[in-house]
Amino acid sequence: MHFKIAIIGTGNVAWHLASAFEDAGHEITEIYGRSIEKAEKWTERVYQGEATDSLDFTDSKAEIFVLAVSDSAISEVADEIILPEESILVHTSGSVPLEILGYSSAAYTGIFYPLQTFTKGKEVDFQQVPILLESDDQQTLLILKKLARSISPLQYVVKSKDRKALHIAAVFASNFTNHMVRIAEEIMHRQGLDFEMLKPLIIESMTKTLEMGARRAQTGPALRGDMDTLESHHQFLNYNETIAEIYRLVSQDIIDSN
Amino acid sequence: MHFKIAIIGTGNVAWHLASAFEDAGHEITEIYGRSIEKAEKWTERVYQGEATDSLDFTDSKAEIFVLAVSDSAISEVADEIILPEESILVHTSGSVPLEILGYSSAAYTGIFYPLQTFTKGKEVDFQQVPILLESDDQQTLLILKKLARSISPLQYVVKSKDRKALHIAAVFASNFTNHMVRIAEEIMHRQGLDFEMLKPLIIESMTKTLEMGARRAQTGPALRGDMDTLESHHQFLNYNETIAEIYRLVSQDIIDSN
Repeated sequence: MHFKIAIIGTGNVAWHLASAFEDAGHEITEIYGRSIEKAEKWTERVYQGEATDSLDFTDSKAEIFVLAVSDSAISEVADEIILPEESILVHTSGSVPLEILGYSSAAYTGIFYPLQTFTKGKEVDFQQVPILLESDDQQTLLILKKLARSISPLQYVVKSKDRKALHIAAVFASNFTNHMVRIAEEIMHRQGLDFEMLKPLIIESMTKTLEMGARRAQTGPALRGDMDTLESHHQFLNYNETIAEIYRLVSQDIIDSN
Repeated sequence: MHFKIAIIGTGNVAWHLASAFEDAGHEITEIYGRSIEKAEKWTERVYQGEATDSLDFTDSKAEIFVLAVSDSAISEVADEIILPEESILVHTSGSVPLEILGYSSAAYTGIFYPLQTFTKGKEVDFQQVPILLESDDQQTLLILKKLARSISPLQYVVKSKDRKALHIAAVFASNFTNHMVRIAEEIMHRQGLDFEMLKPLIIESMTKTLEMGARRAQTGPALRGDMDTLESHHQFLNYNETIAEIYRLVSQDIIDSN
């Protein structure tokens, strides 16, 4: 079953979803950008679809409108957008509740949240992207499930409240793990050491974490309760107050949760 | 070139190193454990080598003595151990300086630090383990390089001061990334959500981090400066003060280092 879909937004999520939808045989009818130039750049790459900077979609053939704009813009765009009758409006955010679409002109609303990190220019294997769905309307949920299934085998129905918890967990599991590596990079560079040395450790650690679970996979001075090492590391880091405090707090939490 | 090696210690590092040395054709002459029973358990698995609970190695045939005990025990064991003439004593720790071996009876001292996370029962591919070496004696360093090369293609000569920075970086890159995932697991379980949902995100994030570098790979609400989301996440986490504070601090550091 193929759908006609309009994409609202020209960011990373918009781009990756539009490509995935096209690859799955759906029709992209329009791509909306606040700047028409940006939207046009995209319609050159995505084969079909018309670039537009107007939120008046009265004459659109799309059945599903995918709001892939920044979290802070969702509410404004949802209020302004003019949709054809009987159309479905979804947003793609992990942290914005469904209700925010309640005042829109959409007959049906829902959430279509691809739980993955998207980067410009880096292809995404949607077979590995869980799609988190929500809608108050059973028929809409069914349509969203079909749409999700057409691009990924991993679909979950998750309520807004749970999706928020999940998004916070994702921040720890993705943004914060990345930032811990960032701090490690900086410590190495500051000392004139080759960061490459750490890569095998990072790969093995993360493999262990996912295979054994993070609780069992933990090692290191905090787990061993090696206070001398913790103290000496903390002192070493006092050139940067925030990083020293992150060291102290995370070590303490490792100790406490053991 | 094959060496005769005594292993002092019965922990994870001792076990994995002993196996790797044997696989590379070296001879394990003794395995020392404070409890003879534990050492004997090991000599059953490692084919050669004699179990002992005595630190008097006057009559040992070993040329290299590998101290793979806990950081806090290194100094004591190094002071007590009695070694044959002309032998080399190395420890395997990332955080203990070389000088700690200075008062031992060893003619030559050094460090042989495998930069990897070792887990009981989980095999380690030493081809992926950087070995960090140090010695004040050039001849000893040469021997340690040969020993390292026999088990891994990755060897680095790293001074004690740099090795300390490296160990701290490793704590962030390994123990702390693991703990971020641990917190994510707990948030999911607390909400009754399936942690499996997050695994593709974790794998893709870490792949990106290593491919692009952590600075460029970063995404999420802190990077976007999305203060509403940060505030709402922080409030959500106030059931656990430490985790809420970790969220605040790491987010702040992502903002500041951008």
